[in-house]
Amino acid sequence: MSQLLKPVAANGLLSRRHLLGASLAAPLLVAGQQVLGAAPGGPMTPVGRLSAEGEALTRIGIGSQPGTVGSGASRTPLEQLSGTLTPSRLHFERHHAGVPTLDPGSHELRVYGLVDRPLAFKVETLARYPMVTRYQFLECSGNSGVMIAPEPVQNTCGGIHGLVSESEWTGVPVRYLLEEAGIRSEGGWVIADGADAARMARSIPVAKLFDDAIIALYQNGEPLRPENGYPMRLFLPGWEGNASIKWLQNLVVTNQPAYSKDETSKYTDRDADGRAAMFTFEMGVKSVITSPSLGLDMSRHGVYQVSGLAWSGAGRIKSVEVSADGGRTWAPAALDSEAKSKSLTRFRIPLQWSGQPLDLVSRATDERGAVQPTRAEALEGRGVGAFYHYNGMQAWHVDNAGTVSHVYV
Amino acid sequence: MSQLLKPVAANGLLSRRHLLGASLAAPLLVAGQQVLGAAPGGPMTPVGRLSAEGEALTRIGIGSQPGTVGSGASRTPLEQLSGTLTPSRLHFERHHAGVPTLDPGSHELRVYGLVDRPLAFKVETLARYPMVTRYQFLECSGNSGVMIAPEPVQNTCGGIHGLVSESEWTGVPVRYLLEEAGIRSEGGWVIADGADAARMARSIPVAKLFDDAIIALYQNGEPLRPENGYPMRLFLPGWEGNASIKWLQNLVVTNQPAYSKDETSKYTDRDADGRAAMFTFEMGVKSVITSPSLGLDMSRHGVYQVSGLAWSGAGRIKSVEVSADGGRTWAPAALDSEAKSKSLTRFRIPLQWSGQPLDLVSRATDERGAVQPTRAEALEGRGVGAFYHYNGMQAWHVDNAGTVSHVYV
Repeated sequence: MSQLLKPVAANGLLSRRHLLGASLAAPLLVAGQQVLGAAPGGPMTPVGRLSAEGEALTRIGIGSQPGTVGSGASRTPLEQLSGTLTPSRLHFERHHAGVPTLDPGSHELRVYGLVDRPLAFKVETLARYPMVTRYQFLECSGNSGVMIAPEPVQNTCGGIHGLVSESEWTGVPVRYLLEEAGIRSEGGWVIADGADAARMARSIPVAKLFDDAIIALYQNGEPLRPENGYPMRLFLPGWEGNASIKWLQNLVVTNQPAYSKDETSKYTDRDADGRAAMFTFEMGVKSVITSPSLGLDMSRHGVYQVSGLAWSGAGRIKSVEVSADGGRTWAPAALDSEAKSKSLTRFRIPLQWSGQPLDLVSRATDERGAVQPTRAEALEGRGVGAFYHYNGMQAWHVDNAGTVSHVYV
Repeated sequence: MSQLLKPVAANGLLSRRHLLGASLAAPLLVAGQQVLGAAPGGPMTPVGRLSAEGEALTRIGIGSQPGTVGSGASRTPLEQLSGTLTPSRLHFERHHAGVPTLDPGSHELRVYGLVDRPLAFKVETLARYPMVTRYQFLECSGNSGVMIAPEPVQNTCGGIHGLVSESEWTGVPVRYLLEEAGIRSEGGWVIADGADAARMARSIPVAKLFDDAIIALYQNGEPLRPENGYPMRLFLPGWEGNASIKWLQNLVVTNQPAYSKDETSKYTDRDADGRAAMFTFEMGVKSVITSPSLGLDMSRHGVYQVSGLAWSGAGRIKSVEVSADGGRTWAPAALDSEAKSKSLTRFRIPLQWSGQPLDLVSRATDERGAVQPTRAEALEGRGVGAFYHYNGMQAWHVDNAGTVSHVYV
């Protein structure tokens, strides 16, 4: 047995440097055979087509509040994608009063409150400011909230964790606008609200807006999608998605938070003592295994790539470990070479599977040294029903027939 | 006048650190005005919608060879996009016999020739190999070929330079397949061909395949688009697009190039002495200004962001300079902070425009120190009609009314 085929952790995990000495490919018996070209194919088209596989991809878990059509969520089918980017049409949604249709010619962003010069910015005005471009994730703070259920919910990876997506975001740093308006020294908070019927409003510390916040105008090279805030949204890298106000309309500088309904009745969690944790913006270090996962069964024995996504609101992912025995033994996974800050990072590790039952789980560590907690650690001290900001581990069980289910380990 | 408003080069170029002391925004007169929310908006949808602006974006310059529908090209509308990524539906196309429809279940990649073990790989087999994910550009070697015309062609930025696009590519390193097949020491070349009716075939040095070449299965998170080679293509980072064979069908290891029609009658250039330059794979260091450009006129005086894209087949972009006086004086542009290797890189520099005529031109330098040539330098020594691999500078003239045209400087 080659050195690279030796297991590095229990239940068949191989070195991430394993190069597959055990062939998966079929021998080619008639090597020189020429396949004659088919008839000429289809023409160039103004807008590209999807493959049949691509056509079959949709957002999943679409659900609205009873009696509404526009208040709810849809999720990214994480286990159906590879790489790290989310195609724009599959970016998750979370709306509180549906997707408004705004006129980009008349919509304006107003900056006022504790400033020397209240200002108004149209889209065409913002387009004349310096912009920045970055690949970053957006995650709803309610993502993976079903992990508080007493029994593991049997759903796909995207069904459980699909309120996270990755895009290239391009926009104007918010600090330019605040500096131009002449923000006063007593202005410590900015109340941001949107032009949707829900008037979604959140209080943002000024320090974040001077750090890396942008007014996003472009997503994946093109103008924002309507469901992502067209024509402009606030984008707060690494922070809970709800605070990245869509259809952004006002930035009001204040000396205290607004305690809006969207940060008191929602997007807060009661702890076990009954106190509300508020303004818990940063998303924790987290990872999920996308393959194998429920619905993607392992029908044949042999080598597989265990693969998934890791991210942290605090910066870059430093390492991801994978266990095939429910967290008793761990092996380091390979990461993409160009892991970016506050960005989805793909990890992969090979596994030799011969029908042994597996409990697959991943654990991420970020550049600040924060380690993803176990489920028990993640839920410790939470009040009843406190489901926001779940970043604990999640395990998939593979039975000896190769069928995958969700388990707590 | 603030230090940051002092010009750093002729004709109004400002420091890339200029933060817009001269306000572009409108004063907000009624600061506290409340806008009542509109009626609830639209619902969540299985697949996301485009904005009206996004709907209006299409590939441009679609053209076929006379008498065919599938042999030709379409281009990315570079000046209509921002950031660096190209939405998949707007990726440029170049086909020689149209877009074939292949069955992903039966299509296979065959590796044979100077190997110990000829092998065949189906899509489902490749999916079990280690993959890598990278953001990289693909550029047709004929891109910008109209720059050899004696008079500047009046076309948009995308019309001239739109045979380049950027994607996140995910796939299996080719070296794993060659190692598994047992490539023999005398195998110095690999003949790659596609399953299109044109049987597009190119000879690739083995060294490149062992360096960073992949069999790409995913583009921007989803399965390859049909026009980008579904279900699998060769992808050779930084090399002329034609060599990244789509609908990849055979990798035949040989001890010499095939001298296929696609590397003799096409994709070669005669020099002034009548000799053909062959196997000139790497794309040179290059930049283009996307804004302002022909069709994006400067209708008002004030501060603008001059912006564009730079790339190099040799690695990372190190710097981009911009001139507003046709190349006599230069100022450094700001680059995206996370410039990636063999990847489009966005550059930006502010310009104070008061109606003075401009000749805007950009010049990129890559990490190896290669500097983008002038047009005269780029065309030096070329034979008549030799249009491949043009990476020289290109200038836009802005007249005193703000109308933009293409000029040679």
